[in-house]
Amino acid sequence: MVWSGSLASGAGAASDAPAMRWWGWGDPDRAPGLPAHALEFLRESTGIAAQPRPPVALGNVRLAPSELPAGARAELRALLGADGVRDGHAERVLHAAGKGYPDLVRLRAGEPRGAPDAVLYPAAPTQLQPLFELCARHSLAVVPFGGGTSVVGGVAPLRGEHAAALALDLRALAALVEVDHESRTATAQAGLRAPALERRLAAQGLTLGHFPQSYEYVSLGGCAATRSAGQASTGYGRFEELVLGLRMATPAGELAPRALPASAAGPDLRELLVGSEGTLGVIHELTLRVRAAPSRSHYEGVFFEDFVSGAAALRALAQEHLAPDVARLSDESETRMSLALAGAGGLKGRLGRAYVGARGYGLGCLAILGFEGAGREVGRRCAGALSLVRRHGGLPVGRSPGEAWRAQRFAAPYLRDELLTHGVMVETLETAATWSRLLELYGAVARAIAGSLEEQGTPGLVMCHVSHLYETGASLYFTFLARQREGEELAQWQAVKHAAGEAIVAHGGTITHHHAIGCAHLPWMEDEVGSTGLAALRALKARLDPAGIMNPGKLLPG
Amino acid sequence: MVWSGSLASGAGAASDAPAMRWWGWGDPDRAPGLPAHALEFLRESTGIAAQPRPPVALGNVRLAPSELPAGARAELRALLGADGVRDGHAERVLHAAGKGYPDLVRLRAGEPRGAPDAVLYPAAPTQLQPLFELCARHSLAVVPFGGGTSVVGGVAPLRGEHAAALALDLRALAALVEVDHESRTATAQAGLRAPALERRLAAQGLTLGHFPQSYEYVSLGGCAATRSAGQASTGYGRFEELVLGLRMATPAGELAPRALPASAAGPDLRELLVGSEGTLGVIHELTLRVRAAPSRSHYEGVFFEDFVSGAAALRALAQEHLAPDVARLSDESETRMSLALAGAGGLKGRLGRAYVGARGYGLGCLAILGFEGAGREVGRRCAGALSLVRRHGGLPVGRSPGEAWRAQRFAAPYLRDELLTHGVMVETLETAATWSRLLELYGAVARAIAGSLEEQGTPGLVMCHVSHLYETGASLYFTFLARQREGEELAQWQAVKHAAGEAIVAHGGTITHHHAIGCAHLPWMEDEVGSTGLAALRALKARLDPAGIMNPGKLLPG
Repeated sequence: MVWSGSLASGAGAASDAPAMRWWGWGDPDRAPGLPAHALEFLRESTGIAAQPRPPVALGNVRLAPSELPAGARAELRALLGADGVRDGHAERVLHAAGKGYPDLVRLRAGEPRGAPDAVLYPAAPTQLQPLFELCARHSLAVVPFGGGTSVVGGVAPLRGEHAAALALDLRALAALVEVDHESRTATAQAGLRAPALERRLAAQGLTLGHFPQSYEYVSLGGCAATRSAGQASTGYGRFEELVLGLRMATPAGELAPRALPASAAGPDLRELLVGSEGTLGVIHELTLRVRAAPSRSHYEGVFFEDFVSGAAALRALAQEHLAPDVARLSDESETRMSLALAGAGGLKGRLGRAYVGARGYGLGCLAILGFEGAGREVGRRCAGALSLVRRHGGLPVGRSPGEAWRAQRFAAPYLRDELLTHGVMVETLETAATWSRLLELYGAVARAIAGSLEEQGTPGLVMCHVSHLYETGASLYFTFLARQREGEELAQWQAVKHAAGEAIVAHGGTITHHHAIGCAHLPWMEDEVGSTGLAALRALKARLDPAGIMNPGKLLPG
Repeated sequence: MVWSGSLASGAGAASDAPAMRWWGWGDPDRAPGLPAHALEFLRESTGIAAQPRPPVALGNVRLAPSELPAGARAELRALLGADGVRDGHAERVLHAAGKGYPDLVRLRAGEPRGAPDAVLYPAAPTQLQPLFELCARHSLAVVPFGGGTSVVGGVAPLRGEHAAALALDLRALAALVEVDHESRTATAQAGLRAPALERRLAAQGLTLGHFPQSYEYVSLGGCAATRSAGQASTGYGRFEELVLGLRMATPAGELAPRALPASAAGPDLRELLVGSEGTLGVIHELTLRVRAAPSRSHYEGVFFEDFVSGAAALRALAQEHLAPDVARLSDESETRMSLALAGAGGLKGRLGRAYVGARGYGLGCLAILGFEGAGREVGRRCAGALSLVRRHGGLPVGRSPGEAWRAQRFAAPYLRDELLTHGVMVETLETAATWSRLLELYGAVARAIAGSLEEQGTPGLVMCHVSHLYETGASLYFTFLARQREGEELAQWQAVKHAAGEAIVAHGGTITHHHAIGCAHLPWMEDEVGSTGLAALRALKARLDPAGIMNPGKLLPG
């Protein structure tokens, strides 16, 4: 089967979902390439492959033949229409995996772990209930698919004991249903992508304010199903804090917690459905809190002498209610890497004038503090925060670093594709803990990652930033790079992931702050919720999805 | 059996829980009585009983004999000690009901609907699991009892199909386990009362900031189990927002969501346990977010021309991030009543100088806006809010009304006892909705209450205030008074409650914003969460409490 432009998006007719590289991240038309200085930096710091290793051609991706039984296929087509049930090669490849490191390693090699036996495109929420009935009857696993950006294996189809696995692509359920200006809420179908929502809200002077690194592709339903947090979530709130009401179709019926500002009517069902990762049902509609679009923004760079003093300043900002909307504090290693990759003409050059001359290149930690809102409010908040930061020894260096970061805020996944081409493993993982445990956790996880890489003979770079602030704690976002062990890429990754996960649970962190459980974090789910907690979640699943067809093998171990 | 001082508290040996009137609210030593002008106001507006109707003597309260089987009793004593299992008359009366209107009507008449067959006082959390095992084996219902302040029937023991019902009084589990200054968290056992926690936090410069009207008696566990909101929750957050981690003993084992600032590891178990009203297990420990104790506070009174313009101003405060910590907007009726009850020498007199002379007594709506925090911050926030309020037509009238409200902020339940003595029904109920539905909801519920009272030949006063602000909506807190239908008090109450509940669900409100479900709101629980939602909650209960011993008859209908 041949790759075609129209298949790049795998789009249902009604969709304006953007096209995505099947083998990596982002716009298929974006030209590849790393700047020479970045390549040189990698060669020196981690080593790179002798020859670039591009992905195989799409036609060479090996898939097992679809095992969807003909009878089930006919019923599915009767329900969803012929165009709503597709099993072409490209279509299946595009829905074979998310965008985690192991996914990309496998896809680039042409050997995904599996692929859906067909891809379904429902055109209306009313089709979901009969669809589940049909799938339960034929024992077909259903894997909800929004933007396809999971980095934890959340959308990779696992058939389990079932006859076949189907991807359920929600891109046609993308309507903006209602905007309630008085209540500051927007109701949208779950397949709507974040940028499409933001464009339509912006036209009405509003914003959702949810900007994960995957922003350009994520669907609203995916953000809800995975408890997404975005770069500005310190200010706008995590995605689950934006969800006022939702509608989820489950095999046992519809769950629809109403859009209420607050309630004391028992356990909060919203908080059960948010984060359920498609294992209980499919979220098909959301009522979200929105805000006035900011009329002004100010992103300030601040240097701290070290990570410890920077973290102390961020803690004070959060606890004295002066937190910015975006707060990122890079450790020494990440600061050094950012300056190196920015190159002489970029951030490094500009910062040279402002700072590096004063304290010496390579020392210190760079923070970005971003403020958004109404004009005067931004100025006042920024002044208050920078005053506190100075009292904590921070050195504001102006807007350049912040603007440089903003210009590249969604670029990292593209960079990852380039690194893979050059034989460099790059992976991220995140955790969170209370402030009193944060530095201990930071050290333990960084040592675990570095130790595992060294043990494997591929010493690497380990970097971290504080990415979200809370009054009681913060998140840590780790990035690590190392030369790939050719032919052993997955084992290499698995070893590091295991070491990091063990360190996280041993030192009081959560196994995931905003990437969800999927498959990648299954080994630590019991550490996270306890055996009785797992039993409770399983009982819930058994009641809502008695045939076990909803995204099997995810979230709940065993 | 004879009433004695030491039994007034029903206290376990280790407890410093305050004593409580068995027949009503609060300090048993407080002298009764209404000021003459308040009595006159009632006589004119609702009518009062010809003769005062005091409660019966404790000794005349009729209880069925305890049906706790001797074998179970012996096992319980072996587990908890002789002092941990009590079935004296006063002990049982004190645990027979909470403090809702129907509870008090029944208690004052000496005829509670039921009483626990014994009261248990566990001395350590480790006793809970064996206790549940014992109770399941003997088919004994377990009714957790914290401060005993439920107004929805949450602590009234319902035996259901079981052999007997036991109150589980947590007052001995009242330790402050740890204060983590760096993370701004406090870990305490669930039986600790809110004032005791605040005293101990204040000594360390901290506050929890949770002040429901029942503050003087509530336990922390009770606040968590019922999703309490306090008078300052607009600023400090609802109780569930203060719960970072908790430990709950269930018949199926311990559930202990860890104290994390945030996590994306699946559905949030904390949000399942919070609000579970003792039906899944007993919360025995909480890790709570705390804040720096305020060094300054400013409570300002603001008059608005009417409820509509006041609500619009509060909405703007919430949506422009200028909300005070305490925000209450009384409607015209509540404003009039507050001024009348305050009397000539009180608020009314002081306000006469500031306002009433200018606009005429009885017009307009009074709001209290309270700001707490560090010195400068309070001034800045207050100035910003009052500036916005003026733009919305509000007239700030200074601190008197706010200070008057603060002085009486926990007094209403005492007043209720006095009203009952004079044959006046007084009840409150609360709801919440998005801003775009709030005024519709307000009108519908007020009309429903007034209509039901009129239909019954007891026309009354119906009042309301907006009590908590959110960006997307607000809560409404209704109070109504009417002359009691003597001998028909419960039917009278039931009719009004039914009318109000039907109006709430028909007009987009939640059946409870901060009083929980208990028994009183069972008829509307399915409207609240849907039939599939109920099925999910029942599945969860069946897994965690397979013998159905935990607080049967509450939260989940049927």
